[in-house]
Amino acid sequence: MNTTATDGGRTPVTVIGLGRMGAALAGAFLAAGHPTTVWNRSPEKAGPLVERGAVRAATVADAVAASPLVVVCVLDYATVHRLLGPAGGALAGRTVVNLTNGTPRQAGEVAELVAGHGAEYLDGGIMAVPPLIGTPHSLVLYSGAPDVFERRRPTLEVLGTATHLGSDPGLAPLYDLALLTGMYGMFSGLLHATALVRAAGVAARDFAPMLSSWVKTMTDAALPGIAAYADTGDHGGEAGSPLAMQAAAFANFLDTGEELGVRPDLLLPLTRLVERRVADGHGDEDIHGVLDLLATEPKENRAP
Amino acid sequence: MNTTATDGGRTPVTVIGLGRMGAALAGAFLAAGHPTTVWNRSPEKAGPLVERGAVRAATVADAVAASPLVVVCVLDYATVHRLLGPAGGALAGRTVVNLTNGTPRQAGEVAELVAGHGAEYLDGGIMAVPPLIGTPHSLVLYSGAPDVFERRRPTLEVLGTATHLGSDPGLAPLYDLALLTGMYGMFSGLLHATALVRAAGVAARDFAPMLSSWVKTMTDAALPGIAAYADTGDHGGEAGSPLAMQAAAFANFLDTGEELGVRPDLLLPLTRLVERRVADGHGDEDIHGVLDLLATEPKENRAP
Repeated sequence: MNTTATDGGRTPVTVIGLGRMGAALAGAFLAAGHPTTVWNRSPEKAGPLVERGAVRAATVADAVAASPLVVVCVLDYATVHRLLGPAGGALAGRTVVNLTNGTPRQAGEVAELVAGHGAEYLDGGIMAVPPLIGTPHSLVLYSGAPDVFERRRPTLEVLGTATHLGSDPGLAPLYDLALLTGMYGMFSGLLHATALVRAAGVAARDFAPMLSSWVKTMTDAALPGIAAYADTGDHGGEAGSPLAMQAAAFANFLDTGEELGVRPDLLLPLTRLVERRVADGHGDEDIHGVLDLLATEPKENRAP
Repeated sequence: MNTTATDGGRTPVTVIGLGRMGAALAGAFLAAGHPTTVWNRSPEKAGPLVERGAVRAATVADAVAASPLVVVCVLDYATVHRLLGPAGGALAGRTVVNLTNGTPRQAGEVAELVAGHGAEYLDGGIMAVPPLIGTPHSLVLYSGAPDVFERRRPTLEVLGTATHLGSDPGLAPLYDLALLTGMYGMFSGLLHATALVRAAGVAARDFAPMLSSWVKTMTDAALPGIAAYADTGDHGGEAGSPLAMQAAAFANFLDTGEELGVRPDLLLPLTRLVERRVADGHGDEDIHGVLDLLATEPKENRAP
């Protein structure tokens, strides 16, 4: 069995799952000259890739057998289990790189399944939209055994910047999900702010540059303090703006939304958490302490 | 009455309200050599400023009479009315610069009050914490008559960068509030993301640089599209990532929070709005359309 590059050529790669993202991954491997085998539940999705030189496998087991490096990018981890479970023996000696979106726990479960069949496993999180795959603007996070990552890095770098986070396979989905929740919080802010100026009849394109500059500046100003508090519980001295004063500003946010006709949905949860933190006696601190209100019991520790 | 600079010197300035921000404003005027008169409800707050050369006025009317430029920075607009209303005749010929936090409607009301007493009015929003006042890192937004702003600009620039937004006095509080809601949305994201990695036992300081870079990159990637949709209703072509696919990712966010023990509060409103937008048949668009779900009737148009 050939688990390294073919003679004088590039490592053969299999891509399982040809949704928008899977098709982009296979396309990038093809463009970089890797012999590429593809499989998709609806086989017609493989058509454009086959035209570009990909080989269409008839079954998942055939697809797995075709290449030493097997990239999986399907809808969810239940699908990963359903596809890889029956592939069984074909997995031995392969490296499975699972780029399906899932949770850290799910990554650990697939890592076990794959190891049980004698294969190596890397989990990954793609921090890019499909059109960016194969460009330097794509970032893919990986976790799993460091030596496996180092061996596969030249091939994985075809997809974009490849960053290894550590040996726990759950780290890539953890970082991926945490980055995305950070992004969607930021989107919440951009959407609410834009809704306010739109409702007031101001052109959003005139406001956007100031908003962009402001949120980036305040990210740099706030995040080190939030991270330090998360790691140490230390507020780092007097608050730049005490939470009790910040709480007063939230009333103006809600009043202005009422005046202009913008629903408060996206602001209400932080408003309530800030109010509760102040009511709990933390009005002289900064906003970092809201972290403590977000902590709850992990699911496994809870009574059924 | 002297409404310009004193002989060979700088424009006398009055600061009404000596909370943390008001004291910082008065301190910056003093540091720049402006004759500075101050008033505060609790007069002892003036002590440190008087030691640095400020004059303490006994009444608001005295404070207003002392300078051609009167800066007001108090708790809220109700306090502005309570203080300036009785100052009545003393206001004539002055320029009132109101840096109190409030709403666009409230700014319009104070502008009318002040104009009724024969004074000029600028409203302002301070985009900085008190320690930054008087440094280039402080940004203050102003709105009101452009010629008044241009005449007072040299003095106002003592406080930091001075930006004029337009003649409607409500523009400064609108921009101020919209920028702050953008920031608090972004904070919601930073807090939730940091809570996730903390709950997984990852050092937040190791994760923070990637989070910072990611949210800034995605601000640049997303905001132009959001602003264009707000102004034109045009989605600008195929979505980079269709909303229906984004909606699927939210389930992973919530599941991971459950697994690790992080409450979903800060993510739930956007989750619900995205779900609703998909249910309404917009699953092939990008996230911009959530703007439409935020729009509601302005308060004045609603049945009582």
